[in-house]
Parts: sequence; structure tokens; C-alpha cells
Amino acid sequence: MSDVASACAAAEAAFDAYRDAPLEARAAFLERIADEIMALGDELIVTAMAETHLPRGRLEGERGRTCGQLRLFAAEVRAGKFLDLRHDPAQPARTPLPRADLRLRNIPLGPVAVFGASNFPLAFSVAGGDTSAALAAGCPVVVKAHPAHPGTSALAGKAIRAAVAACGLPAGVFALVAGEGTAVGTALVTDPRIKAVGFTGSRAGGLALAALARTRPEPVPFYGELSAVNPVLLLPAALSARATALGTAFAGSLTLGAGQFCTNPGLLLAVEGGGLERFIAAANAALAAAPAQTMLTAGIASAYEHGVTARAAHPALTALANRAGGALFATTAAAFLADPHLGEEIFGPTALLVRCANAAELRAVLEGLEGQLTATLHLDDADHALARTLLPLLERKAGRILANGWPTGVEVCSAMVHGGPFPATTDSRTTSVGTKAIERFLRPVCYQDLPESLLPPELLAI
Amino acid sequence: MSDVASACAAAEAAFDAYRDAPLEARAAFLERIADEIMALGDELIVTAMAETHLPRGRLEGERGRTCGQLRLFAAEVRAGKFLDLRHDPAQPARTPLPRADLRLRNIPLGPVAVFGASNFPLAFSVAGGDTSAALAAGCPVVVKAHPAHPGTSALAGKAIRAAVAACGLPAGVFALVAGEGTAVGTALVTDPRIKAVGFTGSRAGGLALAALARTRPEPVPFYGELSAVNPVLLLPAALSARATALGTAFAGSLTLGAGQFCTNPGLLLAVEGGGLERFIAAANAALAAAPAQTMLTAGIASAYEHGVTARAAHPALTALANRAGGALFATTAAAFLADPHLGEEIFGPTALLVRCANAAELRAVLEGLEGQLTATLHLDDADHALARTLLPLLERKAGRILANGWPTGVEVCSAMVHGGPFPATTDSRTTSVGTKAIERFLRPVCYQDLPESLLPPELLAI
Repeated sequence: MSDVASACAAAEAAFDAYRDAPLEARAAFLERIADEIMALGDELIVTAMAETHLPRGRLEGERGRTCGQLRLFAAEVRAGKFLDLRHDPAQPARTPLPRADLRLRNIPLGPVAVFGASNFPLAFSVAGGDTSAALAAGCPVVVKAHPAHPGTSALAGKAIRAAVAACGLPAGVFALVAGEGTAVGTALVTDPRIKAVGFTGSRAGGLALAALARTRPEPVPFYGELSAVNPVLLLPAALSARATALGTAFAGSLTLGAGQFCTNPGLLLAVEGGGLERFIAAANAALAAAPAQTMLTAGIASAYEHGVTARAAHPALTALANRAGGALFATTAAAFLADPHLGEEIFGPTALLVRCANAAELRAVLEGLEGQLTATLHLDDADHALARTLLPLLERKAGRILANGWPTGVEVCSAMVHGGPFPATTDSRTTSVGTKAIERFLRPVCYQDLPESLLPPELLAI
Repeated sequence: MSDVASACAAAEAAFDAYRDAPLEARAAFLERIADEIMALGDELIVTAMAETHLPRGRLEGERGRTCGQLRLFAAEVRAGKFLDLRHDPAQPARTPLPRADLRLRNIPLGPVAVFGASNFPLAFSVAGGDTSAALAAGCPVVVKAHPAHPGTSALAGKAIRAAVAACGLPAGVFALVAGEGTAVGTALVTDPRIKAVGFTGSRAGGLALAALARTRPEPVPFYGELSAVNPVLLLPAALSARATALGTAFAGSLTLGAGQFCTNPGLLLAVEGGGLERFIAAANAALAAAPAQTMLTAGIASAYEHGVTARAAHPALTALANRAGGALFATTAAAFLADPHLGEEIFGPTALLVRCANAAELRAVLEGLEGQLTATLHLDDADHALARTLLPLLERKAGRILANGWPTGVEVCSAMVHGGPFPATTDSRTTSVGTKAIERFLRPVCYQDLPESLLPPELLAI
């Protein structure tokens, strides 16, 4: 693992120079990365298409999102709010004891390790969300390239290195390391110079790395986004009023990108009657028309096959639709509550509908769920009373609550939370998408009575 | 552990009602706790004096600090900044995709377990910093009483319960549990209804509880403040100019409260010559005059005895002063770097002076240190150049950097950081003193396109 060690050593060596550079220089660097990504031209798109089987339109959109993300973080760096500057002026005459002059700013944690996601080869990979947030915070980054898109990773890495050079920053500010298996990841997470880890991927892999991060001689924060089924609640009045439209739209969200989104709607909850059969019929029709899509990797496709086959064979499940483009199964609340495995994620275009006899059963199913990235309510005015009683529970289960929409599609903005209670993520206090993600890579330092000439300049003016 | 289970069940049951109460009600509750503590009158002081051997003046001051802390948190709750309200308005006409309406607020994590400290029987115990911060965040609290001051704990618990009742809050908002040994603490940290833990105490105890918190089926944040020696750097010009005054003031900080502070100055770093012998002489004289003090518990006194005896017998250490009131030892930078155990905390009035041949040695000693709560510079104008080169290193080692002061005395205010890299704390991203401590008990939730009548009221107005 000499590559990992030398990347971490260079990151450590670059840390003070990078974090001490003016915020404007840091912002310009992020913008330059975006420029360099665009300058890669069609080679990036063509390479990503070949490696991921995702269509051109999706990848061009994702490139736009990646660059938009970098530019948004650049603006956030210029604004500097994340520094959380605070000042309690001295009170020399206070009795019984005077108060010292106390000032606070956030500083970056240190070199950050990033494990990119397979399902966002651009926006959540080498130059993606975690990398952008860590660089914005002032942390050098060492990315482990996802083995599913090595060529795409190499191109993005080249763009970042070009930006590092163009901005005159130390080379150690960014490094890309690669390797199959767990050795490289283990070396990276346990390197003493790494001070935080961002991870998007499987529950098993994330939990293994999280355990390493926490049992190092110096434990470090581990931000893992692991698993979610993103419950969608079809409340009675909404279901009754627009079952067919909901069924069609649901199938669209379920099959988008072959269901390979962390916010894929994998669990539907509805009370029997009042349009549920029409919903199923519409979903079924849409799934029948949905084309089969090639999944990101052979491993993902095989795990999906395996999961759907197990569902089809499960005595407590009914197959409502089991198509090449997507699969929908149904069960009862009682059966769901009896078997916790039914709440587990199958990555891909399959969902489970839990048929509840009444609102109390629906609530019981919700209460039994693990933490989620999102929870969605489809509701009409007549559903508001029920929704109001469910909201406190939804807040405790999920990082984002949607009304009358679908959880796929995660806006990169200031108010986004792409996070949630365990096991949706390993740290519910944060988000991995949006500007609030910068906070993950900071820690506060207090300066007491420091002479003005030694104070960080941003603490002088407050 | 039925007490723990029933306390956690009650806390869980009270959570939604408590967090949904208006901020004004939460603030009034915190103020009422302060009123109820004052209403306990002298019984609280007398009980604490008997249990802790701390003098009346210190405990009256600590009571003032405890109530001031509660009132400061009440003001912070009214201001509501910790909610971090954010709003990205809908952009229905945006292409290629419209943007939804997205709003964010922080909500409390859930019931919090608090382990009070032995050395602050009021300000960091039952009604202390962690409890105040968690209640301010909207979390019910279950406190494990410290076995060193059970009567003081019971009185503070009575005051909080009286405030709960007077404010018409559910009884489960606060509970006090007690028990010797580790069974109660283990039950509390592993109870599935507990969603975060605040701990101040020993490194061994804290690490054991932290491991439990992280290996629960649902891991939870563990905020432990464990260990620090709080290096004090005597820079050459300052040492040369005022060695005697520094030596006397150092001894005062070292022996304050029998050295039983987490910010006790347990490590001195100085370059040979230029006043160091005068500093030692002055410190020695002050330590000779310092009276012996009764320590908080027999266990602490015995651990201190043991630690000082080991230092006296250590071949690489020289006893500069070994008095009833405090003990100062010296060693060389080379010896210190050769034996990592020399950097470990001995709780009580003893410090180790590391004599460095030059600034490079001083820097090497600093680089070898573990994370610290504080780092202190004594410096004059002529020392600024050296201080400037050391500051980035100090920032990476400590949560608070002081100039020309002493680390004992932790102001409760907005800019305070009582935290620092591991093992000073288990989470360097936070502070356990000051208003920023509230953030430890919050997580963000995003609301997407929620109808106005269902939105939390504070998200309507932004």
C-alpha cells in the first residue's frame, strides 16, 4: 500500500498550506476543477458510458450537476459562513473574575479519505460531493477510485490535478488511489494522517470501514451512506383521488436509472381499499412497458436477480409485477412486521407494497422501520389530519420528508439533507449532499487573548 | 436495571411532547431549573461540601456558574439560531427540471444519557453543562449520578423534577439513576431509546462506554471528555522577562482545586536558559507554600499518590518540587520523546517540565503529543515569530489556544471550545462547554414541498 501511504503523507504535508490559503484561492480552485472537467470534453462522457452503461443524457446531466456542485461550494467558501466566527469580547472589569477575550473559528479536520459511489460516476465519485465538500472545508483529499469506473475516475482525477497545478497549490491537496479488494480501503481508513472518511456504498462494506475508523488508535469521523428503502406512504384520500396517476409516476421513479439510486422508492405503505387496486394496475402496466436496463456492474445485477428471486419465492409475498424493467411485490403488515429482512434494501428497480388494514397498522410498520434517507407522503387535504400524527414519527425515521413527489432526484442546495438515522447513514447529524455537507469536515478552535498580530485575519474583523 | 429501562421508556414517551413545546416554554423551563436550584438554599452547598471536600466559596461560585449556564442556554433557545433554518424556494419554471420547495431545520436527536463529572458536582453534573445543552436542544435527559456526590446529585435532581412539574412538562423529560460499578452505565448507554451520550470522566471509563455506544445495533454519538495534560509553552522572551511571576502564577493554576480540573496545566515546555531556573525557583517556592488539600475521592487521591510516586522513581525524571500541595518534575525532550507514558495525565496538582535544548526540540515534543483540551503560550513581542510558526501545530493539537493566561477557568459563553482532538475528547467537532454545545444533540431534517399547514411553524416565516 505504498501508494496510499505516499498519498496520505503528501496530503498531510499539504494541509497547512492549503487551509491557510485565502478563501478566494480555495473558491477559485473549486471553480477551476469544474472548468477542467468540462475541458475533458466528450472523452469523459464516452468513457463513463462504456464503464457504467448509463445513457449519454444522464451522464451529461450528471456532469452538469458535478460542476454546479463545485461552483456552489465555491460560492459557499467565498461567503465563509461555515467558519462560524464568534467573539466574546474581554470584560476586564467583571467581578468576581474578569473575562478574557474569546474568539472562535472552525478549522478543517485534516486529510480526508473519500470512497466514491458506483451509481454516480461523476457527481458522487472522484470529483463528487464528498470531495467538493472536503476541499471546500480546507481538507486535502485522497480518493479511492471505484473499481466499476476506473477510466472515468482517472479522467476526473486528471482534471483535479490540473486544477491543483493551475492554482499553484501543493500537489498533495489531491490524490487518487486504486485497487480491487479491501486492502487499499483498509490502508486508507487506518492511515494515521487521515482525519475523516466519506463513504457511499454497500451496508456491509460501509460497516466494515466504519469499524476500522472507530477502532484506530486515533478514531476519526466516518460518514457512510449505507442503505435505505425510502418508504412512500399513499394516504387514503390521495390514493382514492389519483390512484392511476400515482401508480404510473411510482413506476417511473422506481425504474429511473434501473433503480440504482440510494433514494429509490423501495417500500410502499397503503391502507387497503380506496384505489389501491387501481394504483397496482397502473404501476403494473407501467412496469410492463418499462424496458430492461443494463445495470452498473455484473455484481449489482446478480445481487438484484438474487433479491428478486428470493422475493418471488417468499411465502409471505405476492408478485404483483415481475418484469424485466422492474418488479413489485406485496405483503401484509403482519407479515412485514414478522420478518425484519423484508425491510432490507434490494438495490435496483424493485419495491415492496405493504398492505395495511388501517392507519394503526401503517403506523406500526413505520415504527418498525430502520433509519431512512427519505420518507414520502402522498396526501390530499383530507389526509392532513393523519399526516400530522405521522410527521413526528417520520422526522425520527428519515433525513428528508417529501409531500406529493418522489424521492429520486436530490437537489444540491442549502436546505438539502441527504442523510438520516442509522443505517441510512452512520452519522445522522449531517448530510452528504448540499452545502451543509462542508460542516462534516470542520472542528472549532477557540483563541483566548491572542495578540492581534497572531490572530487569524478573519477573527480580527468580528 | 429496571430503573434505567423505565427512565429511558419515560424519556422516549416524553420526547415528542417536549420537543414540540414552543421554544419559549423550553427556555422558561431552563430558567425554572436555575430558580429551583437557588431555592434549595444552603442545603445544596453544605451537602456538596461534605461530599466533595471542596470549599464553600468554590461551590457557591460553581452554583452561580450552573445557574448562569442554564440562563444562557435559555437565551440561546429563545434566539433559536441552533435550528439552522434554511429555505430554498421552489423554482417551478427551471429547466431542464423544476426545483421543489426545500426547507431545513434541526431537530433534537432524542433521549440523551449524561454521565456527570466528579470534579464539578454542580456545573458538570446532574444539572450541569451536558444536561443543560441537551435540554436546550429539546432532548429528554437521563443522568447517571456520580457515586462521589450522591446527596448533591439527589438535590439537583429534585430541583429539576420540580421545574418539570412547575412547567407542566411530562415527567419523563428528566430522570436520575444511580448505582456503583458499571452495570447502570452499561444499561444506560446500550438502551435503544438513548440517542446520544455525554460523558466527562476517566479515559478508561470513557473509552469503554464509547465502545458500547458505537457497537450497539444502532450506534449513537458519544461525547466523552477523557484526558488532557494541557501543554503550556514558556517562550524565551516571556520567560526571560518575567520568569518569577510566571513561576508563581503557574503554581497557582496547578494547585487550584487540588489540580482537579480537566484543564490543569500538567505539562510545561521551555527552552533551556533565559530565566528557566528563576521560573523553577518561583514555582518551587509557591508549591512549598501551597497547603495540602483533600481530594474529591479516596480513589482520586490514591491514583494521584501512585502517579507522583512513579514519577519520583522514574530514572528519566528529576523532582523539582514534591510537596504536599503539589509536585513538579523535570525531564529532557529526548527522554520525553522516548517514553510516551510521560505524556499521560495524572489527575491532581502535578506537572512535568520538559526542558528543550532549542525551539526545534520544543516543536518535536509538541508534535508527539496527543490531542489536548488547551494549549497555552506565554509570549512577549519578541516571541511572536516563533509563536507564529507554532500556531498551526497548536491548532491541530488543541481545542483552545491561550496567550499569557492559564488554562484553568473555562468561560461559559458563545466562543468557548472545551473540546479537542482525541483523546482530549472522543469527538473533536464539538464543545462540551458554551452555547455551541447544543449542536451536539441535533440533526437536520429537510422538508420538501410540504403543505404549509403541515410545516413546522418556524419554517413558515423564513
